[in-house]
Amino acid sequence: MLIVMQVRASEQQIEKVCGVVREMGLTPHPIPGSMRMAIGITGNKSRIDEGRIISMPGVVEVIHVTQDYKLTSREMKPEDTVVDVLGAKIGGEKIAVIAGTCAVESLDITMKVAEAIRSAGSIMLRGGAYKPRTSPYSFQGLGEEGLKILASAREKTGLPVVTEAVDTDTFDIVAEYADIVQIGARNMQNYSLLKKAGRARKPILLKRGISATIKEFLLAAEYIMSEGNYNVILCERGVRTFSDYSRYTLDISSIPELKMLTHLPVIVDPSHAAGRWGMVIPLARAAIAAGADGLIVEVHPEPEKALSDGAQSLKIKMFEQMMKEISLIARAIGREMA
Amino acid sequence: MLIVMQVRASEQQIEKVCGVVREMGLTPHPIPGSMRMAIGITGNKSRIDEGRIISMPGVVEVIHVTQDYKLTSREMKPEDTVVDVLGAKIGGEKIAVIAGTCAVESLDITMKVAEAIRSAGSIMLRGGAYKPRTSPYSFQGLGEEGLKILASAREKTGLPVVTEAVDTDTFDIVAEYADIVQIGARNMQNYSLLKKAGRARKPILLKRGISATIKEFLLAAEYIMSEGNYNVILCERGVRTFSDYSRYTLDISSIPELKMLTHLPVIVDPSHAAGRWGMVIPLARAAIAAGADGLIVEVHPEPEKALSDGAQSLKIKMFEQMMKEISLIARAIGREMA
Amino acid sequence: MLIVMQVRASEQQIEKVCGVVREMGLTPHPIPGSMRMAIGITGNKSRIDEGRIISMPGVVEVIHVTQDYKLTSREMKPEDTVVDVLGAKIGGEKIAVIAGTCAVESLDITMKVAEAIRSAGSIMLRGGAYKPRTSPYSFQGLGEEGLKILASAREKTGLPVVTEAVDTDTFDIVAEYADIVQIGARNMQNYSLLKKAGRARKPILLKRGISATIKEFLLAAEYIMSEGNYNVILCERGVRTFSDYSRYTLDISSIPELKMLTHLPVIVDPSHAAGRWGMVIPLARAAIAAGADGLIVEVHPEPEKALSDGAQSLKIKMFEQMMKEISLIARAIGREMA
Amino acid sequence: MLIVMQVRASEQQIEKVCGVVREMGLTPHPIPGSMRMAIGITGNKSRIDEGRIISMPGVVEVIHVTQDYKLTSREMKPEDTVVDVLGAKIGGEKIAVIAGTCAVESLDITMKVAEAIRSAGSIMLRGGAYKPRTSPYSFQGLGEEGLKILASAREKTGLPVVTEAVDTDTFDIVAEYADIVQIGARNMQNYSLLKKAGRARKPILLKRGISATIKEFLLAAEYIMSEGNYNVILCERGVRTFSDYSRYTLDISSIPELKMLTHLPVIVDPSHAAGRWGMVIPLARAAIAAGADGLIVEVHPEPEKALSDGAQSLKIKMFEQMMKEISLIARAIGREMA
Repeated sequence: MLIVMQVRASEQQIEKVCGVVREMGLTPHPIPGSMRMAIGITGNKSRIDEGRIISMPGVVEVIHVTQDYKLTSREMKPEDTVVDVLGAKIGGEKIAVIAGTCAVESLDITMKVAEAIRSAGSIMLRGGAYKPRTSPYSFQGLGEEGLKILASAREKTGLPVVTEAVDTDTFDIVAEYADIVQIGARNMQNYSLLKKAGRARKPILLKRGISATIKEFLLAAEYIMSEGNYNVILCERGVRTFSDYSRYTLDISSIPELKMLTHLPVIVDPSHAAGRWGMVIPLARAAIAAGADGLIVEVHPEPEKALSDGAQSLKIKMFEQMMKEISLIARAIGREMA
Repeated sequence: MLIVMQVRASEQQIEKVCGVVREMGLTPHPIPGSMRMAIGITGNKSRIDEGRIISMPGVVEVIHVTQDYKLTSREMKPEDTVVDVLGAKIGGEKIAVIAGTCAVESLDITMKVAEAIRSAGSIMLRGGAYKPRTSPYSFQGLGEEGLKILASAREKTGLPVVTEAVDTDTFDIVAEYADIVQIGARNMQNYSLLKKAGRARKPILLKRGISATIKEFLLAAEYIMSEGNYNVILCERGVRTFSDYSRYTLDISSIPELKMLTHLPVIVDPSHAAGRWGMVIPLARAAIAAGADGLIVEVHPEPEKALSDGAQSLKIKMFEQMMKEISLIARAIGREMA
Repeated sequence: MLIVMQVRASEQQIEKVCGVVREMGLTPHPIPGSMRMAIGITGNKSRIDEGRIISMPGVVEVIHVTQDYKLTSREMKPEDTVVDVLGAKIGGEKIAVIAGTCAVESLDITMKVAEAIRSAGSIMLRGGAYKPRTSPYSFQGLGEEGLKILASAREKTGLPVVTEAVDTDTFDIVAEYADIVQIGARNMQNYSLLKKAGRARKPILLKRGISATIKEFLLAAEYIMSEGNYNVILCERGVRTFSDYSRYTLDISSIPELKMLTHLPVIVDPSHAAGRWGMVIPLARAAIAAGADGLIVEVHPEPEKALSDGAQSLKIKMFEQMMKEISLIARAIGREMA
Repeated sequence: MLIVMQVRASEQQIEKVCGVVREMGLTPHPIPGSMRMAIGITGNKSRIDEGRIISMPGVVEVIHVTQDYKLTSREMKPEDTVVDVLGAKIGGEKIAVIAGTCAVESLDITMKVAEAIRSAGSIMLRGGAYKPRTSPYSFQGLGEEGLKILASAREKTGLPVVTEAVDTDTFDIVAEYADIVQIGARNMQNYSLLKKAGRARKPILLKRGISATIKEFLLAAEYIMSEGNYNVILCERGVRTFSDYSRYTLDISSIPELKMLTHLPVIVDPSHAAGRWGMVIPLARAAIAAGADGLIVEVHPEPEKALSDGAQSLKIKMFEQMMKEISLIARAIGREMA
């Protein structure tokens, strides 16, 4: 349900409508637009008294949202959401590239990578301090030490940092250090973590589960938004199919589909999809050409020595090459690099 | 790595070996067999001093386990694990059936179902108090009230209860009431939850993720076992494929495969795989015929009024029919109902 | 569209109705039932003049078939189709087992297998004379020489033979020697071959394509039936999924689904689904338990020397074991071996 | 097996080597390169006498090809194959676009589309005269009448035509009219048709099966090439996965993979992958960005009236828009439109 306010509706009118919505036992979500405010409503819709709302001052109309996902849908908010992190923007016209090592390994490596990717035009640094690993016996990340390394790198380079929170227990400490908190593919339906992310003040980068449908993906984002955090970035990273030559099958069609269905920014992780570096650049080009708002890419100065996912990491030279190529693609479709 | 002890090794000898393993910075996991004790070792294998161990009194040999999963593998423990809950057994020769409503709805409905399934030969009651739901706006379960209803039903019928823990925050309260704690398909790679389950004293029913490989499934069980909880029951519940007429595709081949690779009990959930009641009984029969150690089935007195997953719930009469049919199948393959 | 005739409708009345249907530019398909005759109609339904038909002597009613597949559907023919080949029956109450080597290799091997499977209770012999192979450089079968070997084996053992036709060019020669002509999974949507099969007088064993939906499978059978050959046997042989430990994923749920939607016999090929012999028996048991009308299984006296698919062939001893086990399963579900 | 000849090897020397290869019971396939000739060898490799070949005049070395596919592999022929049809080229540096209606419907529509796509920069006309349809009751194409319409359109516009051969029976007539013969996804493993295509003198456009692995796809091309037809164009058109919002999942990663493994041209069909026109342009852009050598696209002046696959056809205006967009993408990656 969506309440559309008049262009000149006052803040007071908006607040009154929200109050009435709350009185009905529902939750109002103010959605500012370039022209006017709208108010999304979630909760048990049998409780709504439309007649009462429609007659309130400042209200133009009440719209029924047909999708199961509400706050994430373009029906609710036609304009693109732009997530702004310390001035770095994801969403909107420009193409944003996030890059870094898979796991944070040492300050030295992180600094080397951070400086290299910044020079190449990347606007944000990635790196995992807490790593979800398929085997309990694999390297599980440096933990808080890793977060501190990321914070040092941010201080020295000015690059905001993206890092993953793997559970509710460590979410708060991750959110304290991170500028954007990533929720990984394995946790896309970890609803407690999604709700916790929804109550956080940091933007969330949500990766698609390896066999999630588009609807399930948007409903996972809805979990976050329904708790009040509207700064969500969606990330396609490949799905699991019968295909055996790439680690996952990059679902390139999901990009135009998501851009149609939701106002949230959509980025692509070509590194995890490919599983080997030789395929990363073509997939990166394809993602931008298909309309993605950015990329998140793994880079390592010496991939053969990486503690995690070395096979899919680009060397710095290759990353620079990738940046040149995608900036040409961006221009070809009338966009430019952030 | 597995240390095989002599048939007549004393407890003292076993304890000494465990002590030496710990000294090396590794974790010993005593695995009792019908004939003799073995000690699984997990941790950084570069630290192990095999010569020292092999020369200790009571030690027969040190075996290298070739699989990535160790404690779950049949290499480590050739004999079937039997999970015993208040005298109800899962694993071994007998076929165990767990049944109940999808979500706990009320004491009245739970009691009605509990009595009916006990009469029909079911040895355990299921019901979700905390429900993981794809949409944030769907019914999320009764929470602790649901757990109390399950406890009442156990008291009145003597049936142990299985219920799901959806996150680390509520795990403890679930484990307090439940006899077996279920970890659902969406959480199969929620490693914090798996580790928490590994430190609990209650057996764990682990469902396969909808696109998990067999290896990923066993590594998820390994997370639990590596923390010291060896009472794990595996549950196949269908995988996601292109096939569109059943909710999931029951991977029947996984049953003989798992029985070969692991000593853990393997049960099947035909209700979630099918997604509609008309297909539940044939799948239940097939599961037992393929070698499953049991079933977990949804039953509801009035499926059309169920708050969750009514379409796939059997009416009580149908459940009784199912029990008759699978007991005949059990006998045909030389097993009997628990 | 289905015309239901009166119980006592005369042959003349039936023939008249068929004549009128043909006059309208449509094709009539007489479908005998245990009680009365029905006449399926295929073709451009805009041409039908229902009023004219309903008023003809002997006609009870005209029913609209809601599915895209018509002649294959249970709506058109509620009773099970039984395919009878030289007295060997597939479909109906009894369980039929077809067995033999993957490819025909020599008269000696074929005779050895034929005698062994007959003693064990198999009612039909399989063996490929023309082999569809993924690589042009693999063994492509003995061709007509293979067909002659099968014919000799039939003569000596009395077992009817099933063998594959891989294209329209060799269909006629295959149909000349074979008692049932198999159309393999790769050819499930080879429409020219299906139409040719539809004009043949031999029953057709149609295997499901490795990623065919149930609807596509039934429409493939419809191609055969719409040309006038109503003796079609459907065979589930596994579908392609992300799962990597069996060659294909046996879609066990397809059995109850197909038995509900169509009157045609449904059998299962556990050998191709599994891809290795150790998994064949549990899958065979599961298939029968799920309601399959029979099996088609690969058997070889010395699998390690087989020219094709040795890994998935049962040795003769194992096949005998399988027959014992499935006859017990058959009895458990109230059926018996053919 | 590959025989590399000296740069200045004479035709006579080459012919002698081929003769010796034939004498050994093997098949030689001369593969001209920009610098020198190579000779691929297929057949039973146990028969080869390498010593004899290596000592012949003009021979540099004998190389073992490690892949199961030989003639299709880059190991055998490092340089890109360019298929030249009446001067229109597919493969090499330039991007080729083939366009037209799904089915040929009438001369009027075909001419309208042919002129429009030629003006927009398309180099070839597509249209199905024989249509493989999932249901026997769907429109099956105009047959030879359709071929004649295509021939008229070629005469009037100069555009070569691509059309599908659905079986061996009609292959010859299709090959008579067509400039390139298409083999559709359903027939990718119709080996008789592939062999027939291998003996034809027209280039073949081979579409990937909906669940074919890359290796199976290349082996299908190998079937064609092993018969002597080296003009094969590969076409990715989407694979079947769990994903339900597009008709198929365009496997964008297959493009860089195929370009690495084979020298054959690789084009993409975004229309069948998407299943609806709104997604065609982004997929077309992505395909070119990922390195495809061209596209085959469905265009219809009035898609809502199309006899087949209207939902996925671009209107002429949209197609012109697509051509503009992909020519910008082509330039961005250093290529240009053919």
